[in-house]
Amino acid sequence: MNELVRVEVPGRWEGEAEETAFVGRALQAWFYRELATRDEGLATALHDMSAEKPFSIALRRQPDERLVVTAYGILAPFVLDLSRTMPDRLLLNARWWRREGEAAVERATWPELAAGLLAPAPETRTTLNFVTPTTFRSKGNYLPLPVPQLVFGGLLERWQTWAPVDLGAGAGAALEGIVVRRHRLASVAVQLKGLVPGFVGAAEFELRSAGGPYGGLLGVLARFARFAGVGAKVSTGFGCVDVTTVAGRPASQAQGETGARPGRGN
Amino acid sequence: MNELVRVEVPGRWEGEAEETAFVGRALQAWFYRELATRDEGLATALHDMSAEKPFSIALRRQPDERLVVTAYGILAPFVLDLSRTMPDRLLLNARWWRREGEAAVERATWPELAAGLLAPAPETRTTLNFVTPTTFRSKGNYLPLPVPQLVFGGLLERWQTWAPVDLGAGAGAALEGIVVRRHRLASVAVQLKGLVPGFVGAAEFELRSAGGPYGGLLGVLARFARFAGVGAKVSTGFGCVDVTTVAGRPASQAQGETGARPGRGN
Repeated sequence: MNELVRVEVPGRWEGEAEETAFVGRALQAWFYRELATRDEGLATALHDMSAEKPFSIALRRQPDERLVVTAYGILAPFVLDLSRTMPDRLLLNARWWRREGEAAVERATWPELAAGLLAPAPETRTTLNFVTPTTFRSKGNYLPLPVPQLVFGGLLERWQTWAPVDLGAGAGAALEGIVVRRHRLASVAVQLKGLVPGFVGAAEFELRSAGGPYGGLLGVLARFARFAGVGAKVSTGFGCVDVTTVAGRPASQAQGETGARPGRGN
Repeated sequence: MNELVRVEVPGRWEGEAEETAFVGRALQAWFYRELATRDEGLATALHDMSAEKPFSIALRRQPDERLVVTAYGILAPFVLDLSRTMPDRLLLNARWWRREGEAAVERATWPELAAGLLAPAPETRTTLNFVTPTTFRSKGNYLPLPVPQLVFGGLLERWQTWAPVDLGAGAGAALEGIVVRRHRLASVAVQLKGLVPGFVGAAEFELRSAGGPYGGLLGVLARFARFAGVGAKVSTGFGCVDVTTVAGRPASQAQGETGARPGRGN
């Protein structure tokens, strides 16, 4: 229970054409079928769960095509087992996706991630690359924009639901200090039951006022994002991210590095 | 007092090189100098004003280089007068920007804009093209993202401060129904006293639940945006927008048109 897992499986579509349809629902269905086959008790427990399920699954195309499955909490052992016995091919939307090589497994523990809070030079800047469509729920609507308090608020909520290491009562307030430094974003519309607006691209975040007990909070949650996914529908192909964090620097130095085109007006 | 004005003046920089520095502060300084020279009483009134000043000024580069000055409330007559007696050139950041042709003036009245609320087929979709860097203030930080409630909440606030036509107590709640359908955005860092994060690009917004007394609210505020600018620092070169509104359609038809790459996952 104390572990987080991220599995990346290289592969490609069989046949000529590149697959362009969104396969998130097919991925989710495959995952649940595997779960029901291998561990019926766990499948039932997951089904009865009211909180967000502790896994994500997505097919990413950059830098090369990979199936990405992440899990934590009660699902981590299952996904670790899955990574060792991956089938050679998956039927997704009536087409075969073929595995081409072994699964790469990345593991971490909650205490390892949480240790970032106490780091002497905490990571106060992070870049998230949103490599599959990402979206957030906000007041009953989808919001396809990486608002810091939605990005990291959602991560904090999942952390507090699943982690045995409590980040404390002040964490929520500390999130208010996270700002967007720069970004490049484009929306994509994903056909599920209806059209869901999402976005892909990259955004750099910074935790201002990096002093205090929560100076390392941004870095902790960013590393967690790699295992949790970001935003809504991470169990349906959304919100797969690559994460780059940078340790704290003097604000003056950091300022001089902002922006691709500093001082350029248009 | 009952008028809104938008003036566009074609021109270009003298000399060889294209000007790349952000000239927002220089534009603001020029505007205030003109004001002080032509109408000292008005300059004093503006100086003493605690609310946001009812004008915007920006230098845009697309589709061609133009100085854009907008005004409403007590400043509309002054800007109208300014458009008729524009100097041949402006000194901005120690370089000359030369006017090349006459100012184009667009005018509207508050009742004309407000009439959109009562339109039989209200405009429920609008695309804003952010042609100069745009940013918002949110909880003490800059947020360079077009969150609908910041875009249109700020416009509503300015409307209610300046317009003789009250949009009513329910307008604020109606804004919660505005969503982002699609966007393409890139951040820019603007050097003022410090670096201010902004963005350029385009975003399409839709008012869901278009029935009820506020079905036309999105269209009204979008048209106002053309005269008010969007977000923070519109008197310093930020937030100049082009606006395209579309009249209401059945939701099913509108859905089929969403997104540049519908159903495409990545």
